[in-house]
Amino acid sequence: MPEREVPSRPIWMKPDEAVVQIIDQRKLPGELAVVDLESVDEVVSAIYELMVRGAPLIGVTGAYGLYIAARNAPEDFPSDDYLAREALRIKAARPTAVNLAWAVDRTLAVILEEKTAGGRVDAARSEAAAIAEEEAENSRNIGRHGLALLREISSKKGGGPVNILTHCNAGRLACIELGTATAPIYAAHQKGIDIHVWVDETRPLHQGSRLTAWELGMENVPHTVIVDNTGGHLMQHGMVDIVIVGSDRSTLTGDVANKIGTYLKALAARDNDVPFYVALPSSTFDRQIRDGVADIPIELRDPDEVRYMPGVEKTDGNLLVPKDSPAANYAFDVTPARLVTGFITERGVCPAEEAAIRRILAEKS
Amino acid sequence: MPEREVPSRPIWMKPDEAVVQIIDQRKLPGELAVVDLESVDEVVSAIYELMVRGAPLIGVTGAYGLYIAARNAPEDFPSDDYLAREALRIKAARPTAVNLAWAVDRTLAVILEEKTAGGRVDAARSEAAAIAEEEAENSRNIGRHGLALLREISSKKGGGPVNILTHCNAGRLACIELGTATAPIYAAHQKGIDIHVWVDETRPLHQGSRLTAWELGMENVPHTVIVDNTGGHLMQHGMVDIVIVGSDRSTLTGDVANKIGTYLKALAARDNDVPFYVALPSSTFDRQIRDGVADIPIELRDPDEVRYMPGVEKTDGNLLVPKDSPAANYAFDVTPARLVTGFITERGVCPAEEAAIRRILAEKS
Repeated sequence: MPEREVPSRPIWMKPDEAVVQIIDQRKLPGELAVVDLESVDEVVSAIYELMVRGAPLIGVTGAYGLYIAARNAPEDFPSDDYLAREALRIKAARPTAVNLAWAVDRTLAVILEEKTAGGRVDAARSEAAAIAEEEAENSRNIGRHGLALLREISSKKGGGPVNILTHCNAGRLACIELGTATAPIYAAHQKGIDIHVWVDETRPLHQGSRLTAWELGMENVPHTVIVDNTGGHLMQHGMVDIVIVGSDRSTLTGDVANKIGTYLKALAARDNDVPFYVALPSSTFDRQIRDGVADIPIELRDPDEVRYMPGVEKTDGNLLVPKDSPAANYAFDVTPARLVTGFITERGVCPAEEAAIRRILAEKS
Repeated sequence: MPEREVPSRPIWMKPDEAVVQIIDQRKLPGELAVVDLESVDEVVSAIYELMVRGAPLIGVTGAYGLYIAARNAPEDFPSDDYLAREALRIKAARPTAVNLAWAVDRTLAVILEEKTAGGRVDAARSEAAAIAEEEAENSRNIGRHGLALLREISSKKGGGPVNILTHCNAGRLACIELGTATAPIYAAHQKGIDIHVWVDETRPLHQGSRLTAWELGMENVPHTVIVDNTGGHLMQHGMVDIVIVGSDRSTLTGDVANKIGTYLKALAARDNDVPFYVALPSSTFDRQIRDGVADIPIELRDPDEVRYMPGVEKTDGNLLVPKDSPAANYAFDVTPARLVTGFITERGVCPAEEAAIRRILAEKS
C-alpha cells in the first residue's frame, strides 16, 4: 500500500495550475505514481498504455485531452480543423469503449461554439470538468439503485454474506468516484450489509487483482482474489449470489462489451441461475450498433501483454511462454443480451430488453 | 528451449541403476531439470509440488513410489502394514486425479502377492513399468481414435486449418507418450492434416503456456497462446472447430473433473455448437462416484500460487495482489456430462452417456 495520500479521483486538475494529472494505474498497487498530461501525445499514450482505463475515465481523459489540444494550439488559435484532427487522434487511442468517442465529440461540439482562443480553452476545460462531475453523480446513483438489489439478496438469504463476483476493474479507478460495478458494493458496505467480493484477477493485465482488490482493501470490503477460471466452480457450489460487471460499450438491444472473459462468467451465471448484472452510465450505450457480437470492434492488443507477466522487464527469464510461441491478445468480448439479467444505470435498473432500455434512457435522472 | 537432449518420457528408470528419474516440470520451458526420486517423501513432494502432474503420469509416479517404498523398507522386509501405510501417504499427495489411487492400489495388490523382500521389490518395479507401458499404448490408441474426428472436421471444412482449443496440459508431459488431449493433435499433424491449436495459458500455474506450448513447439505444431478468458470470444467468431481436453477423473455418468476453467470452456462450446471432447484412458474413470459436481473432491491449493507470479521468488515486488488481499486456489472444476460431446478413450469414441461409457469400458481394446 503506498504511503502517500491517495487522491480521491483518478484524474484531476492540479490546483492553481493548468495541469491535468492522473494516477498511472499500471503501477498500482505497488506504487502510487502521479503523472502530468501536457500534450495530446501524452494523452493518447496514457489511454493506449492503460495508465488510465475504464470506460467513464477514458471518456473524461479524452475530454481533458481536447482541453490540452486547445491550450497547445500551434497558431495561438485552435482552429476547427486542428481540433477535429486532434479529436480523431484521441478517439483512435482505444476502439472498444464508446465513452471515449462520446465524451470527445461532446466536448468538441461545445468548443466549436466559441470563437476566441481563450473561449475555446475555457469551454474545453469546463466541459471536461462537467463530464467528470456527471460521471461522479452517475456512480452515486448507480450505487443507490444497485444497493436495492444487494439488500434484497441479503434479506432473502437471511444470514451469511452476499457473495458478489466481479471481473476486471469497474471501480472508482475506472470512473471518477465509487465506480460502476463497485458502486453498489461500496453503498452496501457503508450501510452495514454483510458482503464479500470474489475478485477475478483478470488476465492478462490483472486489473482485478491489482486494482479492484486494492480499492476494496482500502475501504475494508471483504474480498478474495481468484484466477479467472474459478467463477464457474464457485457458482456450481452456491458460492456466488450475484455477478456485477461494468461495460465498455453496450447496445440498445442489450449486448454488453466488457473485458475479455466476461462472456464466460455470464454463461456460468445462466447455467447456475445466478443473476448477472451490468452496471454502467447511460453514456456507455451505443445508439448505433444493434448486434454487439457481430459489430462492436474488439481491440487486439500487443501479444507481449500475454507473453510476459505485467510490470516486468521483457527478458527471456520473464517469459510465460516458450520464446518462439506466438500469443493473441483480444481485450474484450461481447455478452449477448439473452445472458444479461439486467442493467444498473444511474436512472434505475432495467432488464436487457430494447424497449426497457430505451424507456430508461429517455427518462430524466 | 533447453540445449540438453529432451528425454522421450517424463519418468523413467535410469539405465543400469535402481533410480527413478523425472523431469521437474515446474522449471519448463526455461530449464530442463532432471530429478532423482529416492524416497517416498520425495515422491509425495514431487506429486504435490507439481514436478510431475497430469492424471496418467501421477499414476505411474505413484506406482514407482511403491517400488521405492519396498526398496527402502526399514526392516529389510517390506511388510503388508508398512506398504499399506506408504500407499496411503502417496495417494494423499493429490486428491482429485483418480489414476493416482488406481495405480497405487493396483501395484500394492500385486506386491502383496509376493512373500520375499526381493520378490516384492521386483514385483513393484515391474508393475510400475507395466502401467507406464499401458499408458503409452493408451495414448497411441487415443491418438488413433481422435485422428478420425479431426480428419472428419478437416474434410467437412474443406480448407484452412482445423482450429483446436485445449486447456492445461494433457500432453506427453502429463502422460508417458503423446498425451491424451494432444495425442489426436500429434497424430493429425503427422498425417499432414492442417491444424492450429489455441493453447489456454491455464492460470495460475500456466501448464498451457509453459508446457503445452513447449511440447507443440518441439513438434512444430502451429499454435497460439491465449489467456483463459479468450475461448468464448473465439468460439463466438467461428475460430474454434473443436475443444479437446484431458481429465483428472470422470464418472461413469459422464461428468468430467479437469483443471479449473474447463467447465467455462464447455459452456462456451455448447453455446456456440462447438464439439467438446474429453480424451482420457479408461483408468481415469471413477467407478464409484455418480454425481461428479457434488462428489468429486476438489483440491484447494496454496493461495500463494495465485498471489505471486509463477516461478519467481515470493517477494513483495512479485505480488500480483495487494499485500493484504487473500486469494483462493481451487485447482479443478467439474463439467457436467450434458456439456460433453464425447469421450476419446483408448478403446474408441463414445458419447457422455452411462450406457455408452459402460459399453466401451467393458470392451477389450
